[in-house]
Amino acid sequence: MTWSNFESLLRRNLAMAQVVAKAFAGSAVNVSGVVGGQSLSTSEAPKSGVCLGASSSDIWRKCAIFVDSGLRGGVKTTGQSVARRTIRAAVVKESPARPTSLVGEGNGSKKKKVMILGGDGYCGWATALHLSKKGHEVAIVDSLVRRLFDEQLGTQTLTPIASLQKRVKKWKDLSGETLDVYIGDVCNFEFLEHAVKSFEPDTIVHFGEQRSAPYSMMDRDRAVFTQHNNVIGTLNVLFAIKEFVPECHLVKLGTMGEYGTPNIDIEEGFITITHNGRTDTLPYPKQASSFYHLSKVHDSHNLAFACKAWGLAATDLNQGVVYGVHTPETSLDEVLINRLDYDGVFGTALNRFCVQAAVGHPLTVYGKGGQTRGYLDIRDTVRCLELAIINPAKPGEFRVFNQFTEQFSVNDLAALVTKAGQKLGIEVKTAHVQNPRVEAEEHYYNAKHSKLVELGLEPHYLGDALLDSLLNVAVTYADRVDNEQILPAVSWKKIGTKPKTVKPSGL
Amino acid sequence: MTWSNFESLLRRNLAMAQVVAKAFAGSAVNVSGVVGGQSLSTSEAPKSGVCLGASSSDIWRKCAIFVDSGLRGGVKTTGQSVARRTIRAAVVKESPARPTSLVGEGNGSKKKKVMILGGDGYCGWATALHLSKKGHEVAIVDSLVRRLFDEQLGTQTLTPIASLQKRVKKWKDLSGETLDVYIGDVCNFEFLEHAVKSFEPDTIVHFGEQRSAPYSMMDRDRAVFTQHNNVIGTLNVLFAIKEFVPECHLVKLGTMGEYGTPNIDIEEGFITITHNGRTDTLPYPKQASSFYHLSKVHDSHNLAFACKAWGLAATDLNQGVVYGVHTPETSLDEVLINRLDYDGVFGTALNRFCVQAAVGHPLTVYGKGGQTRGYLDIRDTVRCLELAIINPAKPGEFRVFNQFTEQFSVNDLAALVTKAGQKLGIEVKTAHVQNPRVEAEEHYYNAKHSKLVELGLEPHYLGDALLDSLLNVAVTYADRVDNEQILPAVSWKKIGTKPKTVKPSGL
Repeated sequence: MTWSNFESLLRRNLAMAQVVAKAFAGSAVNVSGVVGGQSLSTSEAPKSGVCLGASSSDIWRKCAIFVDSGLRGGVKTTGQSVARRTIRAAVVKESPARPTSLVGEGNGSKKKKVMILGGDGYCGWATALHLSKKGHEVAIVDSLVRRLFDEQLGTQTLTPIASLQKRVKKWKDLSGETLDVYIGDVCNFEFLEHAVKSFEPDTIVHFGEQRSAPYSMMDRDRAVFTQHNNVIGTLNVLFAIKEFVPECHLVKLGTMGEYGTPNIDIEEGFITITHNGRTDTLPYPKQASSFYHLSKVHDSHNLAFACKAWGLAATDLNQGVVYGVHTPETSLDEVLINRLDYDGVFGTALNRFCVQAAVGHPLTVYGKGGQTRGYLDIRDTVRCLELAIINPAKPGEFRVFNQFTEQFSVNDLAALVTKAGQKLGIEVKTAHVQNPRVEAEEHYYNAKHSKLVELGLEPHYLGDALLDSLLNVAVTYADRVDNEQILPAVSWKKIGTKPKTVKPSGL
Repeated sequence: MTWSNFESLLRRNLAMAQVVAKAFAGSAVNVSGVVGGQSLSTSEAPKSGVCLGASSSDIWRKCAIFVDSGLRGGVKTTGQSVARRTIRAAVVKESPARPTSLVGEGNGSKKKKVMILGGDGYCGWATALHLSKKGHEVAIVDSLVRRLFDEQLGTQTLTPIASLQKRVKKWKDLSGETLDVYIGDVCNFEFLEHAVKSFEPDTIVHFGEQRSAPYSMMDRDRAVFTQHNNVIGTLNVLFAIKEFVPECHLVKLGTMGEYGTPNIDIEEGFITITHNGRTDTLPYPKQASSFYHLSKVHDSHNLAFACKAWGLAATDLNQGVVYGVHTPETSLDEVLINRLDYDGVFGTALNRFCVQAAVGHPLTVYGKGGQTRGYLDIRDTVRCLELAIINPAKPGEFRVFNQFTEQFSVNDLAALVTKAGQKLGIEVKTAHVQNPRVEAEEHYYNAKHSKLVELGLEPHYLGDALLDSLLNVAVTYADRVDNEQILPAVSWKKIGTKPKTVKPSGL
């Protein structure tokens, strides 16, 4: 098949976004794959525009949804055959100023070099694969300390996750795409400097933080670790961008928990206040309620300053509670499966409820259960990240998006899981346990979340299908559940100065 | 002279506040000193009320302004002669729930055991002596790292400060009062635990932070040091209070710089916002503009959480720029003299201007000079601290006071120093230098500061007398001025990742 035919075919199939190739500029490579069941290949490089590169693999039959970002763009190429990374870097430098909107435009040229800090974690791994699939060049930076936490706490993900090395190899085997890997700690600036200089990202996604509120409330040592790790790590990232890649867009994961539960509507990062006859738009007041959530508040303030003082471009994604385990990419093969935490330290509400339902454990509602938060499907997390990446903040801009799709109270979630359980023939009970946290259990909550929708987010809403799917995953791996890990293990009020140790089971 | 005569004399002289004794409860001691030129002494302890204790020294002839806090109060005593600390602790424990107001009441019973973190620093040292003079039992905790900064930067205070050991000994010699000293770093929790358990404070005053914005903007290493040192140190303090002295009132030094320069009035810590038809009182939005100022923002959020989650009592003193060098206590003897920083890193605006005027250096106004901030006399700093201490926050309360007395623009200050210089026969010139900071140079600024006045603060306003005095100090020590240290040495935009070193003079 010739280039012309291939290009023509791709154009006809754009609407379906069923394109099985990844675009990059300037080198002559073989293209092969399957579009709509039809095998494709070409070794003819176009004289202008882009050419396509993809290795043959049965991934294409399984999941042929690579978007042809390259085809619709207008990247100028040299026509010379040079090493891939060099070309990519050149493209980045030649590309016009940051595009501002995805909506209504072709986005073929928006291929990015994305470095994902924390790319081995729950959100990071799913995001890495999604971006790789969408044609972005991806590097994973991770110290793997999240895996160490599991060892130390005696917990494990419900799903059997593979090592990062095996995950990356499997993705290469299935997709032909390479994920660069840098194993190390972003609190170590020498390491971070090496990684950033080596990969030269145009986008850094920062998931690389300790992300559990209960973990941060276990003892003084872990509270201090959490704030040190998160705040200093982020400071290092800001300095690395300023010094080595000043054009790089930082996409930083915040949390909706930064806002707390004020008695007024929550806006996206900023609020316009009229006071004593004068008006200003100011950072939305923060009322975080754990040392973890506070670390994100600190990060947000540091980011805002770095953007103002140094002209950095940053997007703060104040994410809600993420649920679900599968994305199209992580479900391609069990080696790619994502983690699913259900324990009292790292498990989040809905995921934990589904696991509890699967093993016949009552759903553990903390206190009255009126605690209302924003939630989103992990398939929307990865899409939100991509939207933020391909529509970057402007230099000097500190932008805040509230990243969730629906609000639920804990009681709402319990009712939904109970209902879904009935459909699967599972009897689900609910137990109100003493709330280990310090938080309002009945409160007003109305948080805005329109900016990502304006950029093109089409949410997956929480419905029976999702619950079925999440419940089914829980049922599949029910024999891996450790019932001792389900109950809340950490009390906000009982946190002490002595390191909290875990008693070996049975001792 | 008998107790009755002495008491009578003291009462007659109350209006002049020329009292030469310090009150404490329950032990029989000799009293001697000079009031209004008359020698006083007594060894008779009263059966109720308080007795007085003071060692004989020429301090009384130099500065007989010890206020008789004890005399006006109503401390009940046992009449038994027991060790001083034991009695003090008993008094603290027997005292009624925290009093809420100084105004209109005798405050003799409000003797506190105050641990001052950073008690060797500019504000800390003056506060330690003031509180000791006022009859509080004082311990100083300090790592002395501020002195190391001077060594490393090649800077020194204009005034020749003595070692902490000599300072404390001199104070003991002059006043008879002991300042307990704990040398160590509050980031070292083991050290902090020892100090807190040993002293058992009912109040902790936390000045123990890296307090220079330029220092925090020198290089990545110092930015990271500042945020780590300040945030982790404060976390340790919060944990130490929760674990070892949960009733202890934390008086934490914040900064007016946490608020930035919003286009609306700045309130004291909180603002009531009506938004979309609903109303809530929320933390005032923060817009800090250096890694130092940001560290204080982080602290404030951590404090608010600790008060809410654990029921701690804390007062956040958002202090303005402090000027002046002498307090009645630090000027008693040159060994007690306070530091006066004029260098580009640790020097603050008004102090630096006075030194510049004294040595004939043009006043270095950064940029347009319209930067407006709150200022206060160091004699008001120590008084504000005492007011916050003797009127503590309630358990669970996170209280914020804006601690300054007047607002000035940098241009205002330059004009005032110029005018004061003329009176001393000094010709003062002003030079507008490039602003090394990133800040608005013309802006609205109206910050509330009524809460400390409501507690009884009677401000020293910036006038010719103060400028004369500050200018005279500068002239006295003018031969110690290093002209190379005067100009701004740190640029907000040029901060890099390489540690900034200081070139030895003349090399």
